Amino acid sequence: MTYCVAMRLADGLVFASDSRTNAGFDQISTFRKMHVFEKPGERELVLLSAGNLATSQSVISLLERRAGTDVHNVLSTGSMFETAEIVGQTMREVIRRDNPDGKLGHVDFSCSLILGGQIRGEEPRLFNIYPEGNFIEATEETPFFQVGESKYGKPILDRVINYRTPLNRAYQCALISFDSTMKSNLSVGMPIDVAIYQRDALKPCFTERVEENSIYFHELRQQWHEGIQVLFNQLEPPELAPR
Amino acid sequence: MTYCVAMRLADGLVFASDSRTNAGFDQISTFRKMHVFEKPGERELVLLSAGNLATSQSVISLLERRAGTDVHNVLSTGSMFETAEIVGQTMREVIRRDNPDGKLGHVDFSCSLILGGQIRGEEPRLFNIYPEGNFIEATEETPFFQVGESKYGKPILDRVINYRTPLNRAYQCALISFDSTMKSNLSVGMPIDVAIYQRDALKPCFTERVEENSIYFHELRQQWHEGIQVLFNQLEPPELAPR
Repeated sequence: MTYCVAMRLADGLVFASDSRTNAGFDQISTFRKMHVFEKPGERELVLLSAGNLATSQSVISLLERRAGTDVHNVLSTGSMFETAEIVGQTMREVIRRDNPDGKLGHVDFSCSLILGGQIRGEEPRLFNIYPEGNFIEATEETPFFQVGESKYGKPILDRVINYRTPLNRAYQCALISFDSTMKSNLSVGMPIDVAIYQRDALKPCFTERVEENSIYFHELRQQWHEGIQVLFNQLEPPELAPR
Repeated sequence: MTYCVAMRLADGLVFASDSRTNAGFDQISTFRKMHVFEKPGERELVLLSAGNLATSQSVISLLERRAGTDVHNVLSTGSMFETAEIVGQTMREVIRRDNPDGKLGHVDFSCSLILGGQIRGEEPRLFNIYPEGNFIEATEETPFFQVGESKYGKPILDRVINYRTPLNRAYQCALISFDSTMKSNLSVGMPIDVAIYQRDALKPCFTERVEENSIYFHELRQQWHEGIQVLFNQLEPPELAPR
């Protein structure tokens, strides 16, 4: 399983992804699910992936191999929209390659991607690319996307994140969202890769790999867990009588 | 969709279920998903259901029709374990009736049930009955079960509920768990049916139907939502520099 979240905020973009991959509970590995494509001064792109690892790795390899060639590619597009089109097309191409006549219906070749970034001349933009290769774009009203095991970590995002949330606060909220997810699904696991893009910077993101032994993350988890219990205990206890 | 949660605690049992049923987004109805079987002074049983409504209604109807007859039934069993066996068998019987040769593979006839209660001479017990009719029992280490749309509302239960949580606090936590779920899945909806069984009472549960216009629930949701934001804002904001 996988959990990835990305946010498009007034100040820039925040990305976070776990790094556990499993094919059955006895085959667990660590793979980076965050990939960066960049041309400093001109564009900064981040791609997060969930789903079939063979598919997503092939998509990334093809995007990387074509970047910088004469083919229309993620480093030559004129807009983030066009970039999302290329990523979606590449995903369809890989799935067609691996399941040409659609007969392997019992195997799930699909993956879900989040693409975010900025190309000079445009605002930062964020896209959720579906397994079919089509996509939707984040707006001020819907500033975040999740892929993979998204439900456990959604309530805290819903309650805290809005378009005006500062980048460091959004990063902190993403870590709490990961904490809630990892408590419930063992197949989402550390380390957590984080990338933060400052609006209009057009240079490499601030990146961090939050490891199992991170003191900051350990303290944050504990503070949050205890804070929730204190908050709960402060509520007026209900009487068990009809109201 | 449906969301049901039940807890087995030192002081007794807590049950809560939503009441929205939908077959597509334009066919939404309200159905009670909580059913009580009782013989005051001897047994008190509560059954929560999620999944195919035709199946769960038939299961309930058969259990009700047989209760009090000469057939081995939920009011004549000597233990909660036997009662869970009867419920599981009745579910298999209904699914066999509706899909006799298993050919309607594209239709999901299954349902998931939670059965809790107490029979004189035993402790209060709680069972999660799977779509296959087999079941597991709650323990002190795993004091709650959820069926239906369970993920959004699980983190708060994980953080707050343990075997020693008082009944009124557990009820309050269940309502917060419903709040988080209903914010994210519109097909889980009010009113919420609640039943609280005091250990060794062997008489009808305290029951309540929390309606859309409940002032208590409205205030609790708001207090919790604001409390989470205050708690988050009190955290030390992280610096965006490598640690």
